[in-house]
Amino acid sequence: MAGKNRGVGRGGVGRHLIVEMFECDGKLLDSIDVVKTALLDAAVASNSTVVGFDFYRFKPHGVSGYVLVAESHISIHTWPEYGYAAVDVFTCGEHTDPWKGLEILKERLKAKKMTILSIDRGVGIEQYAGYWTPQPEQKVLAKTP
Amino acid sequence: MAGKNRGVGRGGVGRHLIVEMFECDGKLLDSIDVVKTALLDAAVASNSTVVGFDFYRFKPHGVSGYVLVAESHISIHTWPEYGYAAVDVFTCGEHTDPWKGLEILKERLKAKKMTILSIDRGVGIEQYAGYWTPQPEQKVLAKTP
Repeated sequence: MAGKNRGVGRGGVGRHLIVEMFECDGKLLDSIDVVKTALLDAAVASNSTVVGFDFYRFKPHGVSGYVLVAESHISIHTWPEYGYAAVDVFTCGEHTDPWKGLEILKERLKAKKMTILSIDRGVGIEQYAGYWTPQPEQKVLAKTP
Repeated sequence: MAGKNRGVGRGGVGRHLIVEMFECDGKLLDSIDVVKTALLDAAVASNSTVVGFDFYRFKPHGVSGYVLVAESHISIHTWPEYGYAAVDVFTCGEHTDPWKGLEILKERLKAKKMTILSIDRGVGIEQYAGYWTPQPEQKVLAKTP
């Protein structure tokens, strides 16, 4: 993915929302299809590009899932029996908006209450610019026949 | 996965470590093999059970990846050129220890500095016990021939 998605500014590399969702609809939290579609749509809404995902359904109930995006990730772990979901939405780059992704999740899972902790990640790393420079790969000399 | 991995206690469902790793070895942060092996080994060290994973290498450099475990997840996004990695380790259940997983990551990526924010997730959800009860599935009556 293009480096533009991973730019480093004075405010760090991106925003990471740690979200507690309470009083969600348990039936929705227990559906792997609902949860998966909600996370994939949230990735699109936050203007991120999906590069991989995995979802898993627990027995007797609960779903865990992860969407890897070029701009970081969205994850969820649900406890339907408590109407609770542990969510995090991490996006990098000026073009993304994790709050728009979160809005989709809240709406789809019908969360009545949320607490949100917003963390700026990678703040101050601009002082480390040039900390590491990749070595050019050594050319393999063609063997003479 | 058994419900025992997803138990709810007074301290919540689990611990979520939000970790900033600085002054890591850039070459290691740029290797998808090193990063993948480190995360998978960290999952084992934290006594978690791997259920899925995905890793992605950026051009010109950087790696993103996650390991979904029965007890939640471990994720990483690296900026080798700054020697920086944004990590989070989330584990549920009394039998897990996210700090042991983090120790593996620190060692493998040779992080010289870290800041760690430890968040208890799902605190207070025990008050919602029985919030949702799954409906028994309706039996499909066999058609008479």
